Amino acid sequence: MTHNELLKNLALKNDSKIVFIVLDGIGGHPLAPSGKTELETAFTPNLDKLASRSISGLSIPIEPGITPGSGPGHLALFGYNPFEHNIGRGVLAALGIGFPLKPSDIAARINFCSVDSDGIITDRRAGRIPTSVCAQLTKELQKIKIKGAEIFVRPIRDHRATLIIRATGLGGDISDSDPQKEGFKPKPLIGENAGSKKTIKIVDQFLEKSQKILANKKPANMILLRGFAKYRKFPTMTEFFQLNPACIASYPMYKGVARLIGMKIIEGAETLDDEIRLFKENFHHHDFFFIHVKKTDSAGEDGNFKEKIKAIEEFDKKLTKILRLHPDVIVITGDHSTPSILKSHSWHPVPLLIYSKYCRPDANKNFGESHCLRGGLGIINAQNIMSLALANALKLEKFGA
Amino acid sequence: MTHNELLKNLALKNDSKIVFIVLDGIGGHPLAPSGKTELETAFTPNLDKLASRSISGLSIPIEPGITPGSGPGHLALFGYNPFEHNIGRGVLAALGIGFPLKPSDIAARINFCSVDSDGIITDRRAGRIPTSVCAQLTKELQKIKIKGAEIFVRPIRDHRATLIIRATGLGGDISDSDPQKEGFKPKPLIGENAGSKKTIKIVDQFLEKSQKILANKKPANMILLRGFAKYRKFPTMTEFFQLNPACIASYPMYKGVARLIGMKIIEGAETLDDEIRLFKENFHHHDFFFIHVKKTDSAGEDGNFKEKIKAIEEFDKKLTKILRLHPDVIVITGDHSTPSILKSHSWHPVPLLIYSKYCRPDANKNFGESHCLRGGLGIINAQNIMSLALANALKLEKFGA
Repeated sequence: MTHNELLKNLALKNDSKIVFIVLDGIGGHPLAPSGKTELETAFTPNLDKLASRSISGLSIPIEPGITPGSGPGHLALFGYNPFEHNIGRGVLAALGIGFPLKPSDIAARINFCSVDSDGIITDRRAGRIPTSVCAQLTKELQKIKIKGAEIFVRPIRDHRATLIIRATGLGGDISDSDPQKEGFKPKPLIGENAGSKKTIKIVDQFLEKSQKILANKKPANMILLRGFAKYRKFPTMTEFFQLNPACIASYPMYKGVARLIGMKIIEGAETLDDEIRLFKENFHHHDFFFIHVKKTDSAGEDGNFKEKIKAIEEFDKKLTKILRLHPDVIVITGDHSTPSILKSHSWHPVPLLIYSKYCRPDANKNFGESHCLRGGLGIINAQNIMSLALANALKLEKFGA
Repeated sequence: MTHNELLKNLALKNDSKIVFIVLDGIGGHPLAPSGKTELETAFTPNLDKLASRSISGLSIPIEPGITPGSGPGHLALFGYNPFEHNIGRGVLAALGIGFPLKPSDIAARINFCSVDSDGIITDRRAGRIPTSVCAQLTKELQKIKIKGAEIFVRPIRDHRATLIIRATGLGGDISDSDPQKEGFKPKPLIGENAGSKKTIKIVDQFLEKSQKILANKKPANMILLRGFAKYRKFPTMTEFFQLNPACIASYPMYKGVARLIGMKIIEGAETLDDEIRLFKENFHHHDFFFIHVKKTDSAGEDGNFKEKIKAIEEFDKKLTKILRLHPDVIVITGDHSTPSILKSHSWHPVPLLIYSKYCRPDANKNFGESHCLRGGLGIINAQNIMSLALANALKLEKFGA
């Protein structure tokens, strides 16, 4: 029996409410060996007070040493086996903007970019054109017709958009055209199998026509494609856990993951204040809330130690507003670490806290990497957090007689 | 996806250097319940200083309670699944002396031994005859011809040698003739399948002819065979991890494991001083170094608590010479524990330390069993150490988008 089958067999419905807060990239690293991490440095009286009533630990996102992307990082947090349920970024991007994907659709992320007269990429983000320009350009690209396939082009935000191709027999195992560096031409697409080669024939026609349409649209005079993936239906959190889950996130990508596993997306959040307001307004309509906090990760990715501390402290101040609604179970953790010194996602275990009336609190009174290491949960695999959340909500029957 | 496939997909090449030091059998046991282990008793200022800048933990070689042989112990350390990649000692012995095995060759370890006039074993090691005598005797045995098979006999060291049989359709699932005790006759070989029975027919002829040749060669007037195994190619560390690895070891057996997984063997090390000199000389030619320290294990196997402490303190003194080259990642651990009170390999978790600029150091300032238990890595499976070494060397891409 797999982990997911086990939970599916044991899950039961009741009225208790779980709030699952993902502080994206919360785990960090000291600037010097004897120093403190971002989270340990931050002044977090509310998180610490909650920690003193909670059980804490460290979460390993995938396996020791393995750094997750946001997709598998989140899927593991929600109890899904991240190997079995891995899916490309294109699908998450399309779902993130609410595009109604059908099984076997192929989706990819578009980046508008700038190229010079030789076709060499001079700016991978086309000067981060505003979303309104992006929307105008995608309208132009949407006019492209290709025989034997339906094409959909939709704006996401800034220079980001998504391409969806619908036809029979397509494959999604296709390499990126984005070389990830400026000073190069876009790379030719390479397909792993017959279906993917069929997709590439369509995409190549699309690229040729796009190039003509965009020729005079500087700085966005070309597109880069990445994260090709074929959509397939995932088992929903309702099927797996009998939950009625909701997602409150500001970034499309995380809404995409949430929609993939059947969460209701509560739209309209741009800031953390919006997120908390929407949480309050919808508190009575759902029994599971995924609240995604992006700034902790962005600051880490920018290599900004101080800014990450600020993002943590901002969340700490607003945490009280969430607590005031008295959810039965509160999980606070991250999908991975994003240490400022690495300016990227990393493999380091992630601080984790689970509060409930039944959590068996440990002696830990600080929400930080070193203190969580001493916590009552020990070092656990991220996939087990969802089981613990359900258990603390008394939403799991016992296994066996 | 298996652990090995995962790493293979994520591994990337860069310039950082990993030094992987195996203090064989380093884990120990106190002589009395309130006492300290060999490692805890030893004076190790340099290991302790390194520990204070590192992340530490305990490594479980195979599974809780399972004592590994040196083969699976090392394979697990190098990130190989020790069940899937298990191979008999005969193959490791033959590879250890650089014999060019071909796939499907059968190899076994030979021990020269002494038997009385009734064929009863009186000394399983023939008084540990010198290597020069061993070489002379293997030359004699090499003269043996058997129809339908090629036979190779090569000396290893002291009373140890190796037998290789080359023919088509041979099997290697064959029991040992070595009864592991004196006062018994050598045991008849038993084969599990048709191929192995075919091998036994050849080996029995070889044994009969050997007996005649050795009859007057007392104390080495007979041979014992063990560790029969059929050679097959293993995926190399270059294939798995994109590494250019080197092995520095004094004992053939460990060179055998290293050669099996594609490490370059740097020959010429007899002592720890030799090993360190060779490491320095070759530092710029490889990005991964396996340095094997044998004395810690030998002392444990001899049941010599004090001698094991001495071996540890000797290594500690020389560690500074390794650190002076500033490798990016340093791993120090063992392939298993060898507590002096047990005089043998054991199942006890093994102290582990990983140093890098990005290791997220813990509060542990002592390299010893009890202190490592409180370390930031927790208690992990040996197979995950390689992932962590690669991660710390920034040699792994992230998993998923």
